[in-house]
Amino acid sequence: MPSAGQQFGRIALIGNDRDPRVGESVRILAAHLKSRGCLVLVDEASSLEFGVEAQRVPEASLPSQVDMIVAVGGDGTMLHAARLASPHGVPVLGVNRGRLGFLADIGPTELPQRLDEILEGHYVRDHRAMLQAKVTSPGHPDRTCHALNDVVLLKWRTGRMLDFETWIDGRYVNTHGGDGLVVATATGSTAYALSCGGPILYPELDALVLAPICPHTLSDRPIVVRSTSTIEIRLLERPDTQAQVTCDGVTIGDLAPGDKLIVMPADTHVTLLHPRDHDYYRILRSKLRWGRGDRVMGTQSTE
Amino acid sequence: MPSAGQQFGRIALIGNDRDPRVGESVRILAAHLKSRGCLVLVDEASSLEFGVEAQRVPEASLPSQVDMIVAVGGDGTMLHAARLASPHGVPVLGVNRGRLGFLADIGPTELPQRLDEILEGHYVRDHRAMLQAKVTSPGHPDRTCHALNDVVLLKWRTGRMLDFETWIDGRYVNTHGGDGLVVATATGSTAYALSCGGPILYPELDALVLAPICPHTLSDRPIVVRSTSTIEIRLLERPDTQAQVTCDGVTIGDLAPGDKLIVMPADTHVTLLHPRDHDYYRILRSKLRWGRGDRVMGTQSTE
Amino acid sequence: MPSAGQQFGRIALIGNDRDPRVGESVRILAAHLKSRGCLVLVDEASSLEFGVEAQRVPEASLPSQVDMIVAVGGDGTMLHAARLASPHGVPVLGVNRGRLGFLADIGPTELPQRLDEILEGHYVRDHRAMLQAKVTSPGHPDRTCHALNDVVLLKWRTGRMLDFETWIDGRYVNTHGGDGLVVATATGSTAYALSCGGPILYPELDALVLAPICPHTLSDRPIVVRSTSTIEIRLLERPDTQAQVTCDGVTIGDLAPGDKLIVMPADTHVTLLHPRDHDYYRILRSKLRWGRGDRVMGTQSTE
Amino acid sequence: MPSAGQQFGRIALIGNDRDPRVGESVRILAAHLKSRGCLVLVDEASSLEFGVEAQRVPEASLPSQVDMIVAVGGDGTMLHAARLASPHGVPVLGVNRGRLGFLADIGPTELPQRLDEILEGHYVRDHRAMLQAKVTSPGHPDRTCHALNDVVLLKWRTGRMLDFETWIDGRYVNTHGGDGLVVATATGSTAYALSCGGPILYPELDALVLAPICPHTLSDRPIVVRSTSTIEIRLLERPDTQAQVTCDGVTIGDLAPGDKLIVMPADTHVTLLHPRDHDYYRILRSKLRWGRGDRVMGTQSTE
Repeated sequence: MPSAGQQFGRIALIGNDRDPRVGESVRILAAHLKSRGCLVLVDEASSLEFGVEAQRVPEASLPSQVDMIVAVGGDGTMLHAARLASPHGVPVLGVNRGRLGFLADIGPTELPQRLDEILEGHYVRDHRAMLQAKVTSPGHPDRTCHALNDVVLLKWRTGRMLDFETWIDGRYVNTHGGDGLVVATATGSTAYALSCGGPILYPELDALVLAPICPHTLSDRPIVVRSTSTIEIRLLERPDTQAQVTCDGVTIGDLAPGDKLIVMPADTHVTLLHPRDHDYYRILRSKLRWGRGDRVMGTQSTE
Repeated sequence: MPSAGQQFGRIALIGNDRDPRVGESVRILAAHLKSRGCLVLVDEASSLEFGVEAQRVPEASLPSQVDMIVAVGGDGTMLHAARLASPHGVPVLGVNRGRLGFLADIGPTELPQRLDEILEGHYVRDHRAMLQAKVTSPGHPDRTCHALNDVVLLKWRTGRMLDFETWIDGRYVNTHGGDGLVVATATGSTAYALSCGGPILYPELDALVLAPICPHTLSDRPIVVRSTSTIEIRLLERPDTQAQVTCDGVTIGDLAPGDKLIVMPADTHVTLLHPRDHDYYRILRSKLRWGRGDRVMGTQSTE
Repeated sequence: MPSAGQQFGRIALIGNDRDPRVGESVRILAAHLKSRGCLVLVDEASSLEFGVEAQRVPEASLPSQVDMIVAVGGDGTMLHAARLASPHGVPVLGVNRGRLGFLADIGPTELPQRLDEILEGHYVRDHRAMLQAKVTSPGHPDRTCHALNDVVLLKWRTGRMLDFETWIDGRYVNTHGGDGLVVATATGSTAYALSCGGPILYPELDALVLAPICPHTLSDRPIVVRSTSTIEIRLLERPDTQAQVTCDGVTIGDLAPGDKLIVMPADTHVTLLHPRDHDYYRILRSKLRWGRGDRVMGTQSTE
Repeated sequence: MPSAGQQFGRIALIGNDRDPRVGESVRILAAHLKSRGCLVLVDEASSLEFGVEAQRVPEASLPSQVDMIVAVGGDGTMLHAARLASPHGVPVLGVNRGRLGFLADIGPTELPQRLDEILEGHYVRDHRAMLQAKVTSPGHPDRTCHALNDVVLLKWRTGRMLDFETWIDGRYVNTHGGDGLVVATATGSTAYALSCGGPILYPELDALVLAPICPHTLSDRPIVVRSTSTIEIRLLERPDTQAQVTCDGVTIGDLAPGDKLIVMPADTHVTLLHPRDHDYYRILRSKLRWGRGDRVMGTQSTE
């Protein structure tokens, strides 16, 4: 039975208040945590009904006041929680809304039991590297952001493709034409980068993938490099060139010709908590619908 | 109520006798056809138990003696039935074993009702083009075969890649290095060609796809041409070159340097029968697991 | 020797006046056409120096006053010329700037000789189908445009993916998540659609390709349908959904949830003129760097 | 000026004696090495004319008697040299036949100067990991081999696809249907694995890629894992299943249902020598024809 002296005595609960499936889970969670003697903190701006006496504080203050963040929702909510948690070293536990997520791997039906196991100290810590992106524009202050999944350069308000150069650790790699480039962590390799033809990177692999988006040159293929690499992207002059930069899907601003986008390892990481029987390949099989009997094509041969 | 004067009075029943799921369906089918006054003919060499008085004849004689072939099994069994049926213009009806097939689109549970509808004349005729393949080898007689799905050139007994030239309607197209080439009909576009990166061709489109298998050159992409095209493939000399040619997965022999593989439209086609509400895109969605809620990836954005 | 009675007595010359490589070619062309007795018409708004007495008229009036349009530049200039020419049935001849184009297949060095051959009636006519796009928005007038290459739906001002449905000839096909969709003609199959994983369509094939852009679902593959098909695309509601529609790279406007994009065959086509020895596959080999000795990879085997 | 006391006093020269371009290079090389005071050793079974007094010994004895192996030919010759050299820790220098190779990066024209620089000690050492493959078959002795590029499981003498399971470090990953699987090192990522849709791995990245060959399931994508991983592949029972295993393109035997293929890090690596200005990305750009002006497609936009 957990007590006031437990490891996770103070817990922040966050969820997407526009998602109707989240409301019930957070109420169950809040009541369960309360019954286990935990103090529950929530974002004062959230319109979610937590149903128990929860301490409402500004979202930005949550991480410094808790021992764990429980995020309820899809992997998008997890990305948000990760960015909140990482500067403070607070671990994040993800609860999905009925379908297994890459990051949110506890389902609503198994919630109370799984949560108790974790409160009792039976869990796996999973450290995930994050990226830092910096946009450098002559005459303007730098813009920066952190990303758990990916930093994306994408064409913007134009039917034309972008021309840009990539440099890795100061060495020129390629001049690309196309819609843009994804720089993804191992965590993000199964998100947007996968749609762009990138490979799956095992989460504990210390690597990044650079996946070109709809490249003009068919041999312009994804490249996997060390996670300690510094990636520099320079947009070339071309009429009507306009590009934007996003971190985990959140826009941080435009990139104009002459500007540079620099992606490097962040000095923080995020710690995910998983149940003890966590199995990455099981999640992969589920998300990608792999495995026997899950064929998605016609026959290749007579039978 | 069908009678002896009906359109489909004589029906051949075929199925893969090594597949345990097929046995029960053929017994139900045979009994049902009998009750509807149809004469049932089967392959005398089949080890299946049909359970009613079925006329056993050599498989090769079946098509000339019946008004329809009902094939029970996967798309592989359908391919076999199609090759049997096409020279005689006999239509083929496909019954699957529980999972929708691209060609066998009637499920075992809906069988009696669907069959009655078809016996009563409520069906859709679906004409599918076939290919003829010819291997020409100096000093040897030509070898030929027909295919409903595809004619495949594949490397064989070697770790080395093949070098071969493609010519379309007498014009040189390309010199390829790689594992081989698939020439697929629209029907076959969702089979092996899809695994090789080929597109889906709508079945009624009069077109073929040439899909290179693991091409050495990354810009060696699938090409879609008119179905009336004559494709010629010439294997180039290279140490240890060995290749085989298959039609719908059945080997027709080796291709050696100096030999030619010619693929052209067959002078026959196959007629598939479908229930009246047949919908190709529904089958496609089912087989490829398309559609809302059937996502197979992680998130691309915050939520 | 051509004369005033010749087939192509009046010729429009167009080129991109921001491209420095175009200026010299148009001067050579204008002088040569003049010496052959042709009347040369040019866009009055062009800043190009044509160097001979050329009749300057508004660009929109050019097609109705000439027997041929000669377009100097890249395939982009050709796309522009095609949209000008197609309603008037005027043929287009393409002159490239030194590198073979898919549409502009005459090089500057071979220009005078090739041009004379064509003026003398030795050429190949190449009819290319075009698409018509219509954006239907409740409460707003329809917006339409024509395209020789492609009509593209693309996400716009958002890091989130789009959700949209496709319908072909009134039948529901799929619900897609991703960056958008390319609907390309055979002509456009080697442009943006190819970057999105689409196949190459032989130009005379009466077909369209629908190529999803960075699809969320990995089995959401390009599909090739009859060129007479009507494609309807409906954007689904999703927070922050914003999409734009372009025709041959030119934006025609936004698509909002509830709007429809309809793509159907245009009632006009464009006629390209080629030298008599025109060979599509040669252009393909050149553009895609195909062929022996042009390998773009490492070894697959011991030697 | 090198002397008898130099670092590379004894040098083995190897080359493919069936390649006519190799003969002249080895003669120039042998003479040059002699003039620099080196002792040249060659394979006694080679039919190449080395043109100077070269010591002929059995190929298997070469590595133990020399300070460096110089391999002349394509990357295939380099793979052969690597397997010879690695157990003895002898470094390998690669000389190509006129076209830059991924491994053989010195061209014939720059040979004497580059070689002198290297003999004088100005070079870069490049350690490349190797794989060990083991085929375990009940009732038979294990078969093993080493590979610098890749270990490949491929279907064999059959038109049917294989069904096989993959396990990584004892954990079940997936059941695959398809033509087979490539397990490639970073070095081999630009060889066969790239043709199968795999990513490029930076050579110094401690990682492997598992790339399925023509997978039946479209979401069965390449996966990148730590180079210390142990990969186990089990062939499932299926009629007509036949598969072979190759290491760097050399067949080591068949894999039958019930057999296992185990791929793990080899306990040796190979050391390549490069000129001081060696730049992996320059080789990549050259081999994949990357970079400005090397576009391989049509236009995506008006100009």
